[in-house]
Amino acid sequence: MRVGIDVGGTTVKVGFIDNYKIIDKLVVETKKETLFDDVLNEIKKYSLEKKYDIEGLGFGLPGHVIGTYIDKMPNVGIENLDIKPIISSYFNNVKIGTTNDANAAALGELLSDNDNKNKSCYMITLGTGVGGGLVIDGKVRDGAHANCGEIGHMFIDDLHNYKCTCGLSGCLETVASATGIVRLANEYYDQFKTSLKRESFVSKDVFDLAKENDELGLFVLDKVASYLGKAISIIELAVDVDIIYIGGGVSNAGDILINKIKQYYNKYAHFAIKNLNIKKAKLGNDAGMLGAAYLF
Amino acid sequence: MRVGIDVGGTTVKVGFIDNYKIIDKLVVETKKETLFDDVLNEIKKYSLEKKYDIEGLGFGLPGHVIGTYIDKMPNVGIENLDIKPIISSYFNNVKIGTTNDANAAALGELLSDNDNKNKSCYMITLGTGVGGGLVIDGKVRDGAHANCGEIGHMFIDDLHNYKCTCGLSGCLETVASATGIVRLANEYYDQFKTSLKRESFVSKDVFDLAKENDELGLFVLDKVASYLGKAISIIELAVDVDIIYIGGGVSNAGDILINKIKQYYNKYAHFAIKNLNIKKAKLGNDAGMLGAAYLF
Repeated sequence: MRVGIDVGGTTVKVGFIDNYKIIDKLVVETKKETLFDDVLNEIKKYSLEKKYDIEGLGFGLPGHVIGTYIDKMPNVGIENLDIKPIISSYFNNVKIGTTNDANAAALGELLSDNDNKNKSCYMITLGTGVGGGLVIDGKVRDGAHANCGEIGHMFIDDLHNYKCTCGLSGCLETVASATGIVRLANEYYDQFKTSLKRESFVSKDVFDLAKENDELGLFVLDKVASYLGKAISIIELAVDVDIIYIGGGVSNAGDILINKIKQYYNKYAHFAIKNLNIKKAKLGNDAGMLGAAYLF
Repeated sequence: MRVGIDVGGTTVKVGFIDNYKIIDKLVVETKKETLFDDVLNEIKKYSLEKKYDIEGLGFGLPGHVIGTYIDKMPNVGIENLDIKPIISSYFNNVKIGTTNDANAAALGELLSDNDNKNKSCYMITLGTGVGGGLVIDGKVRDGAHANCGEIGHMFIDDLHNYKCTCGLSGCLETVASATGIVRLANEYYDQFKTSLKRESFVSKDVFDLAKENDELGLFVLDKVASYLGKAISIIELAVDVDIIYIGGGVSNAGDILINKIKQYYNKYAHFAIKNLNIKKAKLGNDAGMLGAAYLF
């Protein structure tokens, strides 16, 4: 049995996985001080109880990770920690794999895709921020500096040039995340007819209204899709993957968003790479667990 | 002995390579009708004469190549050709490798770099156009659609939005190639003091004048470097390589260009990837031969 562990700021999700299927799950509360002990202890207890034979443990970690060394996990509050000795104190002779959470999710999506001729993908996660994960030849790419996939911070927007949390301006994240959608809706609020209540809305409201042909909603959707389409056209030239998955809360807008992204992708894409396979990610929270289980 | 073959529009360069050193060379004129027969025949004759024992043949091909199948080589005028049977008719039991010429050059630069802890690189070639080659874990990446590295056509310039040969506008190539340098110098000619003769100059003149503090020369150098620095910051987020090589005729401007590119790279780069190793490529025309010889 493979175990895939998706570490988040609030909970740690543990999947027991066989033949690419999650057959059992555990959820452990994220406690900064005892996180890995808590999780490994639970996995050990549970697998003894269920008679699961553990082949290996894979970790998707939300931060900067080099092998089993955690440099930084800002949202969890852990840094400068090698988890190998902790794992060894609970499990002998298990395989270990690690990567960041975005890469783990990318691998999970690729592995669960029926279109299994695909060997490489980029997954773009649209949440509070914008993240990315790269899989090449079936292996996640952490990158030479363990920073591969930080595409939320690629410079894309000359026009508004909004300040990003990273300190730069014009980052993809400033205009294509949930936060970016709210920002754009506020920016253009007075220029379009809309049913949006100015003082109290979230990104989902904007795209929900777009589905009802709200002028502001449609305008913001178009803007967001244009930045994403342009960004994907650049990423595809740089690394040429089989398929792009769009995940994260914002992607739940579904076809209306994906189709617009495709339209703008084709506008900006070099003739040799037009009509790329761009799909909504389908696993949601399970992607990280599944991918993590195949890191080793 | 490994043989690296760099196919160009005018000549085919053949390197006989041992332990990462080119120890002998042949140059064969590019004749569209008989190109591979000519080259293989010369290699066979010469290696018999010199008693070279051929372990394998690697080809860097200027076009769209899938394995041994040449889809298109526009500058050579060959398309839709599988070279495997041709090779077999001259050599039995040799290993064969193929990729496009930009990837072969990227691998050549990486292999010849003394800094041999590096396993991944992007090489950006600034010539008439702008090309790119990617090496990951010591292997060239052709990409899922054999289009990896076509970064000359990434959208980068909103401001001038010049028309590109590819049909799009705003491509990196329109502002960072030799052609782009001439275009920018003409665009801004009237706005700066300059010794440039308007009717008859090439890109080298512009950067040569920049070295003498010519105002127009410096302005164009700055512009070109800003586009390249921005482009590299995006590529690095997307794929996170150890090192970037800048090659091609334009790169002969040397430190004045490389240093400006680094400065703009650091302006646009996310904090986690600042101070990337960006170097002038050093092999020139030998890069393609050397890299091609290590494709198998």
